[in-house]
Amino acid sequence: MKKARFIYGNGTTSADLRYGSGFDAPDDFLYFESDEERVTIVSTLEFDRARSAVPEECQVRNLSDFGQVRSPAELIAAVAKTYQIGEIAVPQTFPLLIADELRRRGLSVTPVAGCFYPQREFKTPAEVVKILAAEAIADLAMKTVAEILGAATIDDDLSLRWNGEILTSEILRGEADACMIRRGALPDGTIVAGGIHGACPHCRGEGTLFAGQPIVVDIFPRDLASGYWGDLTRTFVKGKASAIVRAAHDAVTEAKLRAEDRVRAGANAAQLHQYAASILEKHGFHTGIDSDGYACGFFHSLGHGVGLEIHETPRLSSRNNNNLAGGEVVSVEPGLYYHSWGGMRNEDLVLVEKESCRVLTGTPEYFELA
Amino acid sequence: MKKARFIYGNGTTSADLRYGSGFDAPDDFLYFESDEERVTIVSTLEFDRARSAVPEECQVRNLSDFGQVRSPAELIAAVAKTYQIGEIAVPQTFPLLIADELRRRGLSVTPVAGCFYPQREFKTPAEVVKILAAEAIADLAMKTVAEILGAATIDDDLSLRWNGEILTSEILRGEADACMIRRGALPDGTIVAGGIHGACPHCRGEGTLFAGQPIVVDIFPRDLASGYWGDLTRTFVKGKASAIVRAAHDAVTEAKLRAEDRVRAGANAAQLHQYAASILEKHGFHTGIDSDGYACGFFHSLGHGVGLEIHETPRLSSRNNNNLAGGEVVSVEPGLYYHSWGGMRNEDLVLVEKESCRVLTGTPEYFELA
Repeated sequence: MKKARFIYGNGTTSADLRYGSGFDAPDDFLYFESDEERVTIVSTLEFDRARSAVPEECQVRNLSDFGQVRSPAELIAAVAKTYQIGEIAVPQTFPLLIADELRRRGLSVTPVAGCFYPQREFKTPAEVVKILAAEAIADLAMKTVAEILGAATIDDDLSLRWNGEILTSEILRGEADACMIRRGALPDGTIVAGGIHGACPHCRGEGTLFAGQPIVVDIFPRDLASGYWGDLTRTFVKGKASAIVRAAHDAVTEAKLRAEDRVRAGANAAQLHQYAASILEKHGFHTGIDSDGYACGFFHSLGHGVGLEIHETPRLSSRNNNNLAGGEVVSVEPGLYYHSWGGMRNEDLVLVEKESCRVLTGTPEYFELA
Repeated sequence: MKKARFIYGNGTTSADLRYGSGFDAPDDFLYFESDEERVTIVSTLEFDRARSAVPEECQVRNLSDFGQVRSPAELIAAVAKTYQIGEIAVPQTFPLLIADELRRRGLSVTPVAGCFYPQREFKTPAEVVKILAAEAIADLAMKTVAEILGAATIDDDLSLRWNGEILTSEILRGEADACMIRRGALPDGTIVAGGIHGACPHCRGEGTLFAGQPIVVDIFPRDLASGYWGDLTRTFVKGKASAIVRAAHDAVTEAKLRAEDRVRAGANAAQLHQYAASILEKHGFHTGIDSDGYACGFFHSLGHGVGLEIHETPRLSSRNNNNLAGGEVVSVEPGLYYHSWGGMRNEDLVLVEKESCRVLTGTPEYFELA
């Protein structure tokens, strides 16, 4: 009896499955790899498509080859029997019900703690090209946003008007998203958050946009052809920013650029985070809980890995004491959030190199738009 | 020690989590419910947003309330201790690594086979309204597709031309997707498959579209505000269809409409599938493997439940011998696929009612466009 690594799911729920099998499908399917073979097992519905998608060295089998199986556990048990596999390693997110059933049938099932494919953290040149392509789509969408905010006019009550209509978060997001999806990238949750909505980092934003307020625009498209993500944030002000918003912009931009200056192989993730945080502090922006009980200041991490997942290893957070090794693609995104005036975040994607980092983002440092 | 039901994940990977907690976030979070309480536990980053999203009877706790936890298993163990919980039921997809760790710590962890919330299968009036809203967005996108195909001209080589350009699957999909995303719905994998591409039911389609060929358009937007899906397919021919494609259209349309006539509380799912299959057979369209080894005919199931997941219980498949109970929302989508001429699928969403079904789709029976 031999050992093998199994993944069960689909390319949307499991980046590892897409990475390992080279295939993606809307419905769950099975993939396993051993020292002797790599096999993707799909239904008749996906069989032809899988055959033309998987790498040459991989086999595709039809699940009907394994008899009348009535559940994923029965399928995996039948596959294990066919290939004489007795020990199975699975991703940490492997479904518990299937694992329990396989164990009852006498198979050894071990979840792999951490990354199932640790090499996913370090991008090959081909992967960097795919991330660049996704980030270029984010750049285009951000350009669309800047053009619309630039073309917008300001009504007497400071609300923005574009194309004859009041300009809302929903409309501006719709234009950015339309730009991305026309290029085959899926924008799953674009943030266009003006004023107070921007004080909550994951609020998507809603309603009328106004002159003078910061408008946080966070764009993260997944290129559907490759499965890789881009990630990009800028904060705009239509017209003139208040003194505090300008100060926040200067602090965040300085923190981003100076942190990027320190990103390289050997840099410590937690120290990068602390360094950016210290720059924000030095500018007078404190992190904590405000008098109304809201979190304020810089209360998320400086960045995260980006690849087949929008949030993946490594995290540039105060809790990650590892050093960067080179080859990672990470976001660098300091932010400030206060319920008194809103949010300010500025984010690039960078590739960690030996002596420095390579910025993969092409968008300029937007801020005030006349 | 009491019992509770725990869900860990995010609203994209777990429809149950969104259903139970009423909340959605891009990063993983924890929810549990017992006889005494319903609690959502999120990071500081999501705390304010969660507080305003969850139902009134639910609490939101900050994960920092549970000490310095370094993993989801530590968090769940700390929560279980705080709330004196000794037995945990989880969805069948609960991550194995967390379950193993909790069991090592002495907690009983049991995956619930099948639906974690069986009531998700039966839609409340409020849920039907949400599905209707999503389906209405699909209807609008299909109208856009029909308008573009109607406006397209035919070049000498039969390729379609629109807006001064050769019309491709990518362009037509982009316009449909832009329509949906502008309305706040996420179209994750729209199919626009012309000719031979349509012979593979899950091929998204690519390249130039031609007159005379069947163009399968399958649109399934998720309304991001509610999380509910719509699902809609039509097959178009620009210009005149060949005799075989017309015969396939007639067969599929008859199978769909006559199957819908039989959808009601008490109808047997497998029999509905077999009934549609028999109509296709009667029209002379056989299911099996063609001389080149490709699956052909009607080789997927007649339909599937739609709600917070695009594919959910119940399946209208030959393997589901259950009767419908009323309150389900299901797709009805017979299809035919042959490598000799392409694909033909026609799909509505319907609500199962006591004596009949209510069609939730507003799109007409498109086919040939002049």
